[in-house]
Amino acid sequence: MNKLFVLCLLVHTSAFAWDALPQHASAPAENPMTAQKIELGKKLFFDPRISADGTVSCNSCHNVMKSGDDGRPHSVGIQGKEGGRSAPTVWNAAFLSVQFWDGRAKSLEEQAKGPMINPVEMGNSSHEPVISRILKVPGYVEEFKKAFPKEKDITIDHVAKAIATYERTLITPNSPYDLYVRGNKKAMSAAAIRGMATVQSVGCLSCHSGANFSGPTLPEGVGFYQKFPRFPGSEYDKKYDLTSDSGRFQVTKNPEDQNSWRVPTWRNIALTAPYFHNGKVQSLDEAVRVMAKTQLNQDLKPEQVSDIVAFLESLSGKFPDQKMPRLPDISGKAIY
Amino acid sequence: MNKLFVLCLLVHTSAFAWDALPQHASAPAENPMTAQKIELGKKLFFDPRISADGTVSCNSCHNVMKSGDDGRPHSVGIQGKEGGRSAPTVWNAAFLSVQFWDGRAKSLEEQAKGPMINPVEMGNSSHEPVISRILKVPGYVEEFKKAFPKEKDITIDHVAKAIATYERTLITPNSPYDLYVRGNKKAMSAAAIRGMATVQSVGCLSCHSGANFSGPTLPEGVGFYQKFPRFPGSEYDKKYDLTSDSGRFQVTKNPEDQNSWRVPTWRNIALTAPYFHNGKVQSLDEAVRVMAKTQLNQDLKPEQVSDIVAFLESLSGKFPDQKMPRLPDISGKAIY
Repeated sequence: MNKLFVLCLLVHTSAFAWDALPQHASAPAENPMTAQKIELGKKLFFDPRISADGTVSCNSCHNVMKSGDDGRPHSVGIQGKEGGRSAPTVWNAAFLSVQFWDGRAKSLEEQAKGPMINPVEMGNSSHEPVISRILKVPGYVEEFKKAFPKEKDITIDHVAKAIATYERTLITPNSPYDLYVRGNKKAMSAAAIRGMATVQSVGCLSCHSGANFSGPTLPEGVGFYQKFPRFPGSEYDKKYDLTSDSGRFQVTKNPEDQNSWRVPTWRNIALTAPYFHNGKVQSLDEAVRVMAKTQLNQDLKPEQVSDIVAFLESLSGKFPDQKMPRLPDISGKAIY
Repeated sequence: MNKLFVLCLLVHTSAFAWDALPQHASAPAENPMTAQKIELGKKLFFDPRISADGTVSCNSCHNVMKSGDDGRPHSVGIQGKEGGRSAPTVWNAAFLSVQFWDGRAKSLEEQAKGPMINPVEMGNSSHEPVISRILKVPGYVEEFKKAFPKEKDITIDHVAKAIATYERTLITPNSPYDLYVRGNKKAMSAAAIRGMATVQSVGCLSCHSGANFSGPTLPEGVGFYQKFPRFPGSEYDKKYDLTSDSGRFQVTKNPEDQNSWRVPTWRNIALTAPYFHNGKVQSLDEAVRVMAKTQLNQDLKPEQVSDIVAFLESLSGKFPDQKMPRLPDISGKAIY
């Protein structure tokens, strides 16, 4: 009996493979987690002085007080400049093997450096002015010494390492789904449990697999991409302008990557409307219909959609409590 | 002996009148402090959904993670629009009897409503869209019920009351100066102690009086204003464009109010460069020289300036620890 039970359990487990999110995100060997780096990275993440005119911080578009994004179709950077893509959530980005919608950054460290010198985001002409502003703030100089005690200079790589270290703490391993998978069968509603079965039977999990629902576990720097739309020609292509942004093709110039995108996480998806790379879809139920049609060539029944939405909602939070950072100031002198 | 001692003490006290900041700011009878209102107000203060396009929160220009301002000459609102005045710090604004540089708001409650409908700040056409966005967020509706249990509707006055209640917690009664005045004679440096005597002997305290160094205690709604420059004609008028903004005159249209301003607080002044209503002066020592010349017609000696700066630095912080607010989200639907 016992052996049979164990066998059944194994079959069951391998067939369904519902994994809870790990309680900690792993860090690369060259940037181990330390309390000093987390604290410094948190300050840098919230500090608008990283931007050319002091108005935009990482948190402006990736608001960790909310769902890790800005709730807008496209983000707005310095001087009201608007980008062309919707800000992905920073929550659980630590579990993605590549960053940005098109996977152009191989790590959180690499990602952190991009917006600083993007003319429509933080607008610095190079990383040099970022460093020169940081060096003007005695409190930051002190904290960099503590966070990187063996390093002589403060470079943009140290800034990026600190920010990435903080971001690796921004994870939500205690959603209702995680509690459910870890054994609390009351943590999810009946609709969510039905939805859990539906996302599997319909085929969503062929891409949105794994504990982060963003694809298989791959080494850092190796992305998991899919065409979107995989089945072109539906009404949605035009309605939501799905193809004018060529996605990963812009990075690789490889025709096979035309309209390919890094598979995004489902975690906290209920809280990150509007949807898709261009933020054109306003509601989660419509996003589910669009995905079923464009990726699986299926027209879902209304109850399937609502069950899937209930399941996706069970992937929200729980967001950890955080102490508000205090950004070090410079005494008696203006930076801008 | 004892009677003589008491008499001397009284004379001494009345002559110098160095007061520590109260540990709590008082609230108006119609808006008493409650834990629920503080918590709700904190969320609203940090929520960019208060603005027309979801990019600007109260904290954008009055950054409480820093010195309560944005460190810029002029603030930047939605779509990169720039205002004409420097953001005053929100820290200890609770101790001002009127708000804004020109005193046009009679209370924190009234102030909070202004930027929401200022076209170059949060850019709402009226307060109605602010309320309609708040009503879309179930978590906010719940919290307003808790904060205002007797009220049926959520109005802009409730929003303002909650924000003002949070702001009344943003005070810094534990600066080195406060510790010194309360008896810790090691809390201030020798230079700061000399500067303390200098600001009195030079005459600065005739305007920057009281525990908040922003003038005498007046009833809420009654402002304390001064001409700036009081002694026009110095090189600074032109160098720092001191007179083109007519200040309080714009509110009252009374010619006597030409170039009059609410006397700002000295608290945290070392951390809020650049200086003055137009943010034209980059350093605190220059701000001290400008004030001595334009307001008291005095040319200070370099050691007087550095002592005064040391004293002003003793008015920085200490900023209380705060838990980061979690902004309630709406599930599966876009707001923008």
